[in-house]
Amino acid sequence: MQSLEELPTPSVLVDLDVLGRNIAGMQERARSAGVKLRPHAKTHKSPEVGRMQIAAGASGLTLAKTSEAEVFAAHGFEDIFLGYPIVGADKARRLLALADRIRLAVGVDSVEGARSLGDVFHAAGRRLDVRLKIDSGFLRVGVEPEIAAAMALRIAELPGIAFAGVFTHAGHGYSGRTPDEVAKTGSEEGRIVVEAAQAVRAAGLFVEDVSLGSTPNVRAAMIVSGVTECRPGTYVYNDRSQVALGSANAEDCAMTVLATVVSAPARDRAVVDAGSKTLSSDPMRPNADGYGRIVGGQSRVARVSEEHGVIAVAAGESFRVGQRVRILPNHACAVSNLHDRLVAIRGGAVEGQILVAARGCVQ
Amino acid sequence: MQSLEELPTPSVLVDLDVLGRNIAGMQERARSAGVKLRPHAKTHKSPEVGRMQIAAGASGLTLAKTSEAEVFAAHGFEDIFLGYPIVGADKARRLLALADRIRLAVGVDSVEGARSLGDVFHAAGRRLDVRLKIDSGFLRVGVEPEIAAAMALRIAELPGIAFAGVFTHAGHGYSGRTPDEVAKTGSEEGRIVVEAAQAVRAAGLFVEDVSLGSTPNVRAAMIVSGVTECRPGTYVYNDRSQVALGSANAEDCAMTVLATVVSAPARDRAVVDAGSKTLSSDPMRPNADGYGRIVGGQSRVARVSEEHGVIAVAAGESFRVGQRVRILPNHACAVSNLHDRLVAIRGGAVEGQILVAARGCVQ
Repeated sequence: MQSLEELPTPSVLVDLDVLGRNIAGMQERARSAGVKLRPHAKTHKSPEVGRMQIAAGASGLTLAKTSEAEVFAAHGFEDIFLGYPIVGADKARRLLALADRIRLAVGVDSVEGARSLGDVFHAAGRRLDVRLKIDSGFLRVGVEPEIAAAMALRIAELPGIAFAGVFTHAGHGYSGRTPDEVAKTGSEEGRIVVEAAQAVRAAGLFVEDVSLGSTPNVRAAMIVSGVTECRPGTYVYNDRSQVALGSANAEDCAMTVLATVVSAPARDRAVVDAGSKTLSSDPMRPNADGYGRIVGGQSRVARVSEEHGVIAVAAGESFRVGQRVRILPNHACAVSNLHDRLVAIRGGAVEGQILVAARGCVQ
Repeated sequence: MQSLEELPTPSVLVDLDVLGRNIAGMQERARSAGVKLRPHAKTHKSPEVGRMQIAAGASGLTLAKTSEAEVFAAHGFEDIFLGYPIVGADKARRLLALADRIRLAVGVDSVEGARSLGDVFHAAGRRLDVRLKIDSGFLRVGVEPEIAAAMALRIAELPGIAFAGVFTHAGHGYSGRTPDEVAKTGSEEGRIVVEAAQAVRAAGLFVEDVSLGSTPNVRAAMIVSGVTECRPGTYVYNDRSQVALGSANAEDCAMTVLATVVSAPARDRAVVDAGSKTLSSDPMRPNADGYGRIVGGQSRVARVSEEHGVIAVAAGESFRVGQRVRILPNHACAVSNLHDRLVAIRGGAVEGQILVAARGCVQ
């Protein structure tokens, strides 16, 4: 069996034991809360990991882009929700082909967007399941909760559209909040989407699913009465930001980056062969603080160029040229998207590869 | 011929007319300064674009990682400098195989690093051409100019090593400087690397090349007496940061991202289907200011999630769901690394694809 010492650097490692625990743990949490778990597969973009989630009891997968759904459908996944406002006739034609093969639903947040999809489905004598995106405070996409019912009615009457539910993301759990605040806002966001669902039901529409996402807020949100589904993604691998947000501990982090020190030009500065092409340049959440932490110490990657990670060496630590280190990255999803394959490890030995089959699927 | 309207979004576009002008313009500048041009191919990672640079008169290519050199060598490139401190016996064995097929030189900045390469070459009865990296103020890798001669002597006497020159990057031209300051620091960095070369020569070593990189500083630096080679990369495509730094004008930008507005939830906010997976999350240089500018207007992508670009809509501008926009990204090199292929356009029509054959080569 190959050892870590034989791997070329940089390599992205995934510890299968930790991964398995994370998948089982979130599934158990969802079961005990009585909600469906539909993990966001953007974190891994890998059919192998998605199959582990389905095998553990996930009801289906969440993805964002049409091309991602095409990859996962080609790998045998049968129930996909695209939690993203898909727009345009060209995308609609691809969704129509997908809907022939799998159970598919997509997000919408505008009449124009929904119509661009519905027209294509209607012309084919079909209806597309859509869920209305609610903005629970992130100020990105989604309608304000106050207009959810009116917007749902307008979308539901479009030809080729079947209204199926409401969902929210609540990504503001990632910014500028303490772990306690994140826990509190999770329940707040749950309340917002449940109230929006009630308003839509009061307007006469059937709302099958009331769905809500994101690893930081999901524990607090999934226990809000009326929530039927949750869509966390990052929990499979976890990362430095999840630890800072209090939604994971260091031992829950399955993904690390194996790197080599290639330069040590000053006592307080060393440089590894993993930069933004390996770690991404995504900032740490909730507060920016470099691009990764060296596992087993206090030093961190303070800045990145494409192929350089500049370590600010913590007091009492030192690095020598040729030394190998493992780095906990800020954002696991962004790291997955940079690599065609990750290295699966268990107990310090290499077990195989994880293919990131849907890497780079942006269309 | 396919029109831009038929392309799926997001797509990364490269205007071949602008690309051709950029390649010819930099080559002419180098010719008139009497220096060799060895473009850093990290910006495009594409053999097709590299061939255009060689055809225009480039003396060879610069890359960073061993795997990048392997891809370009497999595509017929015969003269590659890895301007990066390569370290380790496993990399050295791959460099040895490359050196059998192409003219190869690599960067070093430590005795330990150089020894890890030289030992492998020496055991094979070969010598590897190395250039010593000088830190001209960026505080990343490289030795301080004051110790260049002493370090060069120690490295030059290692078995398996052939000392071939000095080089610097000067990436601090990207941070916190005005265009005038960038122009000034270019000549300053040229002076530093030339003086380091003189010190190394005074110590008795032969210095063939005195080399210096980066698009912002290269115009000022290539005319410094004693500089023999320049290694700009970004000039082929240019980007929003180069415009802000004064090293390119808007009409010199060959790369744009075609995106669709998928949500327009507020008068001052619209969302496009291009986020950090398409534009990267690299900040604008020299001063952070969102993640891209909408071509033909003042609005900019103020924040990104993986698949969302949130436009802060400028006064007097507006966006509707379904509208297509073109975005000037912050950092062309980072965008190339996110996509397996770019779309080549000319005069508003699609001409073909540019394969990013060395995308993701981090090892």
